[in-house]
Amino acid sequence: MSAKIIDGKIIAADLRARVADEVTRVKRDHGLTPGLAVVLVGNDPASEVYVRNKAKQTEAAGMASFEHKLAADTPQADLLALIAKLNADASVHGILVQLPLPKGLDTQTVINAINPAKDVDGLHPINAGRLANGLPALTPCTPLGCIILAKTVHASLEGMNAVIIGRSNLVGRPLVQLLLNENATVTIAHSRTRDLAAICKNADLLLAAVGKPEMVKADWIKRGATVIDVGINRSPGADGKNKLVGDVAYEEALGVAGAITPVPGGVGQMTVACLLVNTLRAACAIKGLKAPAV
Amino acid sequence: MSAKIIDGKIIAADLRARVADEVTRVKRDHGLTPGLAVVLVGNDPASEVYVRNKAKQTEAAGMASFEHKLAADTPQADLLALIAKLNADASVHGILVQLPLPKGLDTQTVINAINPAKDVDGLHPINAGRLANGLPALTPCTPLGCIILAKTVHASLEGMNAVIIGRSNLVGRPLVQLLLNENATVTIAHSRTRDLAAICKNADLLLAAVGKPEMVKADWIKRGATVIDVGINRSPGADGKNKLVGDVAYEEALGVAGAITPVPGGVGQMTVACLLVNTLRAACAIKGLKAPAV
Repeated sequence: MSAKIIDGKIIAADLRARVADEVTRVKRDHGLTPGLAVVLVGNDPASEVYVRNKAKQTEAAGMASFEHKLAADTPQADLLALIAKLNADASVHGILVQLPLPKGLDTQTVINAINPAKDVDGLHPINAGRLANGLPALTPCTPLGCIILAKTVHASLEGMNAVIIGRSNLVGRPLVQLLLNENATVTIAHSRTRDLAAICKNADLLLAAVGKPEMVKADWIKRGATVIDVGINRSPGADGKNKLVGDVAYEEALGVAGAITPVPGGVGQMTVACLLVNTLRAACAIKGLKAPAV
Repeated sequence: MSAKIIDGKIIAADLRARVADEVTRVKRDHGLTPGLAVVLVGNDPASEVYVRNKAKQTEAAGMASFEHKLAADTPQADLLALIAKLNADASVHGILVQLPLPKGLDTQTVINAINPAKDVDGLHPINAGRLANGLPALTPCTPLGCIILAKTVHASLEGMNAVIIGRSNLVGRPLVQLLLNENATVTIAHSRTRDLAAICKNADLLLAAVGKPEMVKADWIKRGATVIDVGINRSPGADGKNKLVGDVAYEEALGVAGAITPVPGGVGQMTVACLLVNTLRAACAIKGLKAPAV
């Protein structure tokens, strides 16, 4: 028996199409064009690719895209001034500052400067706190994507034993809250966890977000479990060339898991789609409209 | 073999004494008298007892105590005006609004109005978010007390399997964060959890915060585990009279657990002591002093 492949590409395309439908509706019914501003400081090539991709998908969904590219040596005060301008700009509903920032800029200060209502990365402490306290919040995109993928396999996650490996602010910690909201029983494991394999083996839903190539082996996985692999690692393949692999030993996991996300083509596909969801949600909330149907 | 009793009364008294020492020091060295304002709306008898007790212990620790009693039918605007005044009052470093509030007052609006720097109950979303993101934060008192009690048994909680039963904003959810900060592996279970007994049986550290009298039985507990019982429930005793019991079947648990908190005399003792800790910490932070040694 081989696991069902959770196809992030198709699921993300479907999600983007639903966002686009809702954008058409809010434009038509409310004269609202959701707008996303992306700020890139410096010229890290990988970040440039991400930002270009975000802009393209934002426009494809019918939203307004605003790109702001600043030099790597931009003083912090200038970056904060730009954020203040975007906070005040009524055509901007989402503000994303591409991370990591160049040295000399303080990430937390920059995040704190973003209007929480426009914080589509869900990184502002007030959004993390609203999420932690069970209040409506903008939530980080990657964990949101994980939940959507898991729910393509299970109509409900209620009562499932979910195990998260990794406790980052970007993925692991917000996943705890999102999974609690889905009424799952949640375990969060990390580098100091003892007997990680045994803990993983109890998981009905296993989410790996640790950044270690193929760390999770087949014998860590409960037969029939759903596996969501957040890792994107470069690892030398049999031919000596680097290839992208996840945190899960995918080939061997296929024989044990009930369903699994591939890398690439799994969680990674969802992140930008969820950014569009967050921008749409932020725009509707700012405009005082009810939450959109995505 | 009978479990070690974790004596909350002695541990809380010791903590209060250490707070008092630090208060003496900051008064002497920095002319700072930490001040706690407690706001009670209405005349719920239990709340009146709590508030009186808080005031007494605040004064005993050498801090300034300010009590504000408002009528049950106080308009929300008046309560918010009082909070604004306390936010601006330089002699007040901690503001606690006693919950629950009478009907007609919106708890979340009231909590949001408190200056997060003075939010000694740790309930403001910005404190919950700072805690969730691993930043310094004022944290709810009861979970803080649980960690202190556990650490009287274990010098370090690192790598322990901690299981929390209950996912309230006041206890269960902040406990996840505090236990992660201690490098424990954390599982959070709740009413929708399947096979709760088996999950508890894996716990090296079991924290029950669910509000169901004696729900956790001896055969749910791993031999030698440390059990922290947050529950305070009224339950009819053998003589027909109500007695206070925890969420754990204490008498039978004594034969299995390695260490256990009694009810009363366990976690409940710690809450006010931790409120004093938070007030002292808030005062030092507001004054720009380094964090106190408690």
